[in-house]
Amino acid sequence: MTRSPYLKDIPLEEVLRLFRKKLEAYQLTGVLGEDEISLSEEAVGRVLAQAAFALRCSPHYHASAMDGFAVNAACTSGAQPNQPVTLNAGSQAVYVDTGDPLPEGTDAVIPIENTESLDPYGNISSLDMIRTPAAVRIRSSVSPWSHVRAVGEDLVEGQLILPAGEKLRPVDLGALAAGGLKNLRVARKPLVAILPTGDELVPLEKVPQKGELLEFNSIIIAGQIRELGGDPRRYPITRDDLLQLVDRIKVAANECDLVLVNAGSSAGKEDFTAQAVEELGEVIVHGIAVRPGHPVIIGFVDGKRKDGNRKVPVIGVPGYPVSAALTTEIIIKPLIYEWLGWRNPTGEAVQAVLTRKITSPAGDDDYVRVILGIVNDKMLAAPIARGAGVTTSLSKADGITIIPRMIQGIEAGEMVTVQLLRSREQINRNLLTIGSHDLTLDVMAKHLVRFDRRLVSSNAGSMGGLLALKRGECHFSGSHLLDPASGTYNTVEIEKTLPGRHLIIMRWVSREQGLIISKSNPKQIRSFEDLRRSDVTFVNRQRGAGTRVLLDDHLEKLHINPEEIRGYDQEEYTHMGVAVAVASGRADCGLGVAAAAKAMELDFIPLDNEEYELIFPEGAELDPFVRPVFELAHDQRFIEEVRKMPGYNVTFMGEIRSI
Amino acid sequence: MTRSPYLKDIPLEEVLRLFRKKLEAYQLTGVLGEDEISLSEEAVGRVLAQAAFALRCSPHYHASAMDGFAVNAACTSGAQPNQPVTLNAGSQAVYVDTGDPLPEGTDAVIPIENTESLDPYGNISSLDMIRTPAAVRIRSSVSPWSHVRAVGEDLVEGQLILPAGEKLRPVDLGALAAGGLKNLRVARKPLVAILPTGDELVPLEKVPQKGELLEFNSIIIAGQIRELGGDPRRYPITRDDLLQLVDRIKVAANECDLVLVNAGSSAGKEDFTAQAVEELGEVIVHGIAVRPGHPVIIGFVDGKRKDGNRKVPVIGVPGYPVSAALTTEIIIKPLIYEWLGWRNPTGEAVQAVLTRKITSPAGDDDYVRVILGIVNDKMLAAPIARGAGVTTSLSKADGITIIPRMIQGIEAGEMVTVQLLRSREQINRNLLTIGSHDLTLDVMAKHLVRFDRRLVSSNAGSMGGLLALKRGECHFSGSHLLDPASGTYNTVEIEKTLPGRHLIIMRWVSREQGLIISKSNPKQIRSFEDLRRSDVTFVNRQRGAGTRVLLDDHLEKLHINPEEIRGYDQEEYTHMGVAVAVASGRADCGLGVAAAAKAMELDFIPLDNEEYELIFPEGAELDPFVRPVFELAHDQRFIEEVRKMPGYNVTFMGEIRSI
Repeated sequence: MTRSPYLKDIPLEEVLRLFRKKLEAYQLTGVLGEDEISLSEEAVGRVLAQAAFALRCSPHYHASAMDGFAVNAACTSGAQPNQPVTLNAGSQAVYVDTGDPLPEGTDAVIPIENTESLDPYGNISSLDMIRTPAAVRIRSSVSPWSHVRAVGEDLVEGQLILPAGEKLRPVDLGALAAGGLKNLRVARKPLVAILPTGDELVPLEKVPQKGELLEFNSIIIAGQIRELGGDPRRYPITRDDLLQLVDRIKVAANECDLVLVNAGSSAGKEDFTAQAVEELGEVIVHGIAVRPGHPVIIGFVDGKRKDGNRKVPVIGVPGYPVSAALTTEIIIKPLIYEWLGWRNPTGEAVQAVLTRKITSPAGDDDYVRVILGIVNDKMLAAPIARGAGVTTSLSKADGITIIPRMIQGIEAGEMVTVQLLRSREQINRNLLTIGSHDLTLDVMAKHLVRFDRRLVSSNAGSMGGLLALKRGECHFSGSHLLDPASGTYNTVEIEKTLPGRHLIIMRWVSREQGLIISKSNPKQIRSFEDLRRSDVTFVNRQRGAGTRVLLDDHLEKLHINPEEIRGYDQEEYTHMGVAVAVASGRADCGLGVAAAAKAMELDFIPLDNEEYELIFPEGAELDPFVRPVFELAHDQRFIEEVRKMPGYNVTFMGEIRSI
Repeated sequence: MTRSPYLKDIPLEEVLRLFRKKLEAYQLTGVLGEDEISLSEEAVGRVLAQAAFALRCSPHYHASAMDGFAVNAACTSGAQPNQPVTLNAGSQAVYVDTGDPLPEGTDAVIPIENTESLDPYGNISSLDMIRTPAAVRIRSSVSPWSHVRAVGEDLVEGQLILPAGEKLRPVDLGALAAGGLKNLRVARKPLVAILPTGDELVPLEKVPQKGELLEFNSIIIAGQIRELGGDPRRYPITRDDLLQLVDRIKVAANECDLVLVNAGSSAGKEDFTAQAVEELGEVIVHGIAVRPGHPVIIGFVDGKRKDGNRKVPVIGVPGYPVSAALTTEIIIKPLIYEWLGWRNPTGEAVQAVLTRKITSPAGDDDYVRVILGIVNDKMLAAPIARGAGVTTSLSKADGITIIPRMIQGIEAGEMVTVQLLRSREQINRNLLTIGSHDLTLDVMAKHLVRFDRRLVSSNAGSMGGLLALKRGECHFSGSHLLDPASGTYNTVEIEKTLPGRHLIIMRWVSREQGLIISKSNPKQIRSFEDLRRSDVTFVNRQRGAGTRVLLDDHLEKLHINPEEIRGYDQEEYTHMGVAVAVASGRADCGLGVAAAAKAMELDFIPLDNEEYELIFPEGAELDPFVRPVFELAHDQRFIEEVRKMPGYNVTFMGEIRSI
């Protein structure tokens, strides 16, 4: 049974083929139009619509290439160090500055530093007179055309300067100006209408209430359109009302070359985009088999475009930011480039080793965002949170890898192709940490900027961190694994997991762990015993997290069966995640650090002081790339900032301990 | 004897050290200042001045992640395919759209496609009613919090979103907006004054006379400053007048954070920059040991900057465009980045094999621009014209390699490090041709754009091309090497130079070679015999050029000794170069193709029809990357354009001939 009258996912290639066919039928392929603009710095970033040929030579006259004396080369023949030749100034040797035209009868320039200026008495001139001497003495001959920039040295009339389709850079403008061009024919910027729709949306200036969402997708999209070379126009928020939407699309199609309707493209109760486009024209695609991003709509409506063409494409862009970004990448970007005549089909890609298994549903091409880091000369890709609504994943990602729809997942350790979203040089600065989450890592990230490093972190828990170290897949790991028997941290587990390895263990912070509970403790929770109560919901950390180990140790000592605890299966990946679950009422309590409770203004029952340590591979202290982490451990500004965080003790920060 | 009272070249590192010391003394290091701007697409490209932490959670309420029915998960327990559970709509199951808040008492969402909507009689509802049923039937249970975006899933209050120093991209704005930021603290854009100076300069709108130069350096520099993140201000042209220059610098220093004086930084008669800066403050550097670019001035003058600091750096930028561009790269860019707090010290670099020997004077770090191409999976770097005034070299270059000042040159075949000036993906499209120059290559470059290829060419003459093919260092070569004995082209030389290789020889054009002579032939040149005359100056092509071979063949047959010819040593690298030499009066005649004579409106004495062919390595016809050249040879649009060029015959274009 299908609930969606329109929605039907089609593979991307098929979508692009259908779209292309229609664009061709409506004569909407190729450069949209041309603007004639004057040559100025405003032309940077515009795309040349016509090949540019030089209108004149550059230089357009024989010019001196040096400050010196212009001479007829023949007059200098025979000059030698011990057999100087003296030329009369003004007639035989004329002073020229760099760029001056060669005077009539001269064909070479002698640089001033190779001449001796003489006064009327034949003595070497004073400094003031070196350029206006009576005569000039030289001690070597010159050949014709030496130190002269001859006509056309730079550019010859009629020569190709740049072919069509070049995106202009400042230096290109120099070459075009040198060739005598004063006006340039560039591709017209496509005008792109962005229509945010949805009853739940409120403008960015407002404070959103429950059920309201800030409308910021249009800002992201407008920024992207501008970067691609288009001219974005943001329209006001349209309500979930078919008539209003039809009206707005009609207005936008009369003003722009392309209309983007953001959200309302799914098959929900208030998703009117497909209906509105049908009303005004035709829907050719509703649904693409990619993840995230399914419910993309492609259609055409009548409009009044600047170029006289009466057909305007309308694209329904999904509401989730990550889906929206993907739609820009796969549908909108190729169209804008086509209209600009700019051929730039694929971005740069690298090969990288996957640090964690990815599973993926069959049937969809799955676009997975990753962070990247180079460890031991190996490029590593760690997948990040994959929800379509995780706006931060867009900002955090260094690249995207695509899992084709025939494949259901990729194992850790396999090689994947990653399309870069940041430059390689930025990725070269990534310090990759995989392991247990701690709030001091955020502070570290902030301070590492001073050392020209970007901290990128993947929260995989303490055990996950040790395994990453074992495989050589991170620069360091945070870990706080309690050995219940000895009451010590990390040592036992490291010896078990990485036997014989000479890792560097740096003491970092000791931190207060305890129960994070609702403000004023309405459920009167006092200890772990209360977790057995049926009216108490707990929120847990993921398997492998040090905090989970701590909890299980307590439960075992107290003979509490995890099955007795409501919410034991509810897993969060960070301390703040636990605190937020409590603050939002999803749970009554969870185990975590004091600072997280404090940040969310929650109550806290202290239970333990635990050691959170940083573990580095052998030799890391000598690796200049990782060195800044060692330096921060002794940096007063940094230490002070951590010391102020509730529940943190920095007494032993930076101490290297042996196992 | 030194003629330059100031000029004294200092190694770059020493310059940067001196400059840094002064900047520190004047408290001009670090971020220049902060702007508070509202979060909109205008923020793209600005650099964050403060680390940004989330002000609130995102989502800020528990939101449905799907269109469907919100339920209390406990009520669904036991539901199975053959044992459905029916929930009352409105009380037990509430319809929610994606993004709606979870109604009180619910903790999970069942996607609409997993439900059956029932009408009041227990029948499955019609399409219209699926969202407003009387009851909802489900056939599997759900766990709490499934299909719910819980508070903080995306961003947790207090979490670091971005550290300081990040250049904002559209997706970063999304993350910041999700974190509740409405205003951003970004680095103030440095205001940069650009003062073009020089009596020889005329504005771009004018047609320059002899001795006049179009002023376009300020456009290049302004474009670069803007790309770097600064705010450029172009001032009108200043004459070569010390008082006027002093005055202008004073005005600019009161309005801007940095003053660039373009040209007048050398030690010529009219170079007042150093003097003017001395008058207003201090000169700390005059001359850097880099090539091209020597006469850079660095100084400080008093000013009234926005941030209250009273010291303003003044940089004297050399007048030659290539020197100016280099000064931007090594001095101005690091300063702008410092003031923006943007750490991006070095661009991307690749290793490449040098195709031609470079010689370089000792004492200077020599910045050599190259074109790049990948042939047989090997990255190759071909040096391009190196004059400081060759504006086109800036636009043409794919990268820069630096020959350190201790080294006097690098041999062909050696590996060099090349800093990229274009993206790798652009370089991946480069079709590299090394060999003889022909005007049809420009037309080919224009048409290859349609095939997504960039033709980059290095004029090394026919012999140079064959040697490049031999070393596997180009995609193809143009060649027209006459064998005087047989009267055939290329075959003999290929068999001699590349014996046993199965090259592909494609016939391209036959073209008319002859004497290019001045308009109306004032010297009455009729044949090669006239080259012996003492009143006739010849312009030659370089050694290894097919045209040079042709000339030598004629001279030998006529028993003319090259030493008898005035100008035989004067070498040009292209046909147009020869034509320009004649047109400008530097020579009376030269050997070249009819089209070049025609383009410069010169007279022409036809002598020979010669075969110009394209030579490809083995298997090139099967290489999809090179394939477009084969296609162009049969492309009617292209052939028509070549056919129209004077003296060209395209009858056999595209024919593959065997040796």
